[in-house]
Amino acid sequence: MKAEKYRFDGSQPCVLRRLPCDSREDDVEKADILEKTEQNLQRMAELQDAFYADGREGLILVLQALDAAGKDSTVKHVMGGLNPQGVQVTSFKQPNAEELSHDFLWRVNKALPPRGSIAIFNRSYYEDVLVVQVHDLQKGYRMAPRVKEDDPKEFFRKRYRQIRHYEEYLYENSYRVVKIFLHVSKEEQKQRFLERIDKPEKNWKFSDADIKERALFEQYLTTYDEVITATASEHSPWYALPADQKWYTRYLVSEIMVDALEHCTHEYPKLEKESRDRLLECKKALESE
Amino acid sequence: MKAEKYRFDGSQPCVLRRLPCDSREDDVEKADILEKTEQNLQRMAELQDAFYADGREGLILVLQALDAAGKDSTVKHVMGGLNPQGVQVTSFKQPNAEELSHDFLWRVNKALPPRGSIAIFNRSYYEDVLVVQVHDLQKGYRMAPRVKEDDPKEFFRKRYRQIRHYEEYLYENSYRVVKIFLHVSKEEQKQRFLERIDKPEKNWKFSDADIKERALFEQYLTTYDEVITATASEHSPWYALPADQKWYTRYLVSEIMVDALEHCTHEYPKLEKESRDRLLECKKALESE
Repeated sequence: MKAEKYRFDGSQPCVLRRLPCDSREDDVEKADILEKTEQNLQRMAELQDAFYADGREGLILVLQALDAAGKDSTVKHVMGGLNPQGVQVTSFKQPNAEELSHDFLWRVNKALPPRGSIAIFNRSYYEDVLVVQVHDLQKGYRMAPRVKEDDPKEFFRKRYRQIRHYEEYLYENSYRVVKIFLHVSKEEQKQRFLERIDKPEKNWKFSDADIKERALFEQYLTTYDEVITATASEHSPWYALPADQKWYTRYLVSEIMVDALEHCTHEYPKLEKESRDRLLECKKALESE
Repeated sequence: MKAEKYRFDGSQPCVLRRLPCDSREDDVEKADILEKTEQNLQRMAELQDAFYADGREGLILVLQALDAAGKDSTVKHVMGGLNPQGVQVTSFKQPNAEELSHDFLWRVNKALPPRGSIAIFNRSYYEDVLVVQVHDLQKGYRMAPRVKEDDPKEFFRKRYRQIRHYEEYLYENSYRVVKIFLHVSKEEQKQRFLERIDKPEKNWKFSDADIKERALFEQYLTTYDEVITATASEHSPWYALPADQKWYTRYLVSEIMVDALEHCTHEYPKLEKESRDRLLECKKALESE
């Protein structure tokens, strides 16, 4: 699959500045990609049906990105064809007071769906090593003095390990975690911001704070490099996808979803002979009514 | 403290059959112990008040034991003097269908209190390596084939690691976990069962199943040895306490609670000068009413 080349499994470091934001690198044709995306969406729906009936494995898709990279529209356009009965989308905003008074994975655990379901995390616990790190928010945390590290690097190195352990735990408990970073260029972000300002129906998606965060664009890229490198693994890989053309990003995400669902168990439960016989008796009873 | 000698921090293996169930080994006098217990309970209440106001650290007390070892009565008599506003007791029963469709720590995470609170787990996630292991319940789990191990030992070794990682994570996120095993003798269990059968007001505490579990007494002891040895650590120790005399067990638990609360941060928050000045202004306003 095309997304393969954007996959990180921990075997090599991630250097975002060397990765394309643009689809042109992949030499693809839009019409062809749109058609293939359609096929993937259908395949996703089929696979999800069996995956839901099977119920032995859960799938967690983490979506991370800088502002205006297309997280919301990816959810809408790629996940829109799934049966919502088996999908839970959680948007992780700034933590509230109750969330801050718990460990940082507490609210994530609350959002974990039963096996057989797909969780989409629109932002995630990765914010706890991204925005928190870029803004030094951990300094304001109310935690025991022993937890506070003089060196913030050490604090976040521990969090990387905690996240690795957490995803390993989930994998061993029959969940799969797949993480996607939508890699938008600074120029494309500017265009999308301008559109959000110019079009009244998009105004709600823009805030002053976005400009302040944009000023930290380079710092975020560097932090993402570190985070992706530290937390990518064979069982819970990262994908850093070009995000300047939404049609192409959606295609890549649909590929990743098909691949992930194919790896998850998705067999319709088979009945034991006894249960099957009981079904046939029920059939007889219905027919003789 | 007396409980010190029953402490396991991972530096030596736990062999329950070599540890006393009886207080006589410690050469203590009941009247003296009862008085000291009273003092400890008062100290616990004082410490808890500051610990709650401080709110930078959480405390989790795990109570595990075979049947009739005194878990419920420990909660009642040792924790009864705490301010319930800062205490959450959770009794973990057999997992229900929703719980079984999630990872085994899911219901534990739901029961994690905010920092500043004490969680008492009456049974816990340790059941997932105890009763589950003794009865091979993992064989019936609906999980992906890749999770199922041919060798159950390997499945539980992984769970021990997952639990170690989990407790390390909690510690690093400003919680302390203290684990207590109430070590009752087989003879004393028999006496308590007989009492539950003979006294009508205790009948509700007894069920046929208790006799079936009693038949596995030795197997449980062996499994506890393995579990305690594999999961005891400096930051999340186990205590295997003699439990044949309830008055002595309660004393030991009260010692452990005082010690744990003393190790947790418990400073009444100090006001910055500015906030302090504002308080004094409020005082003036009130007095001039």
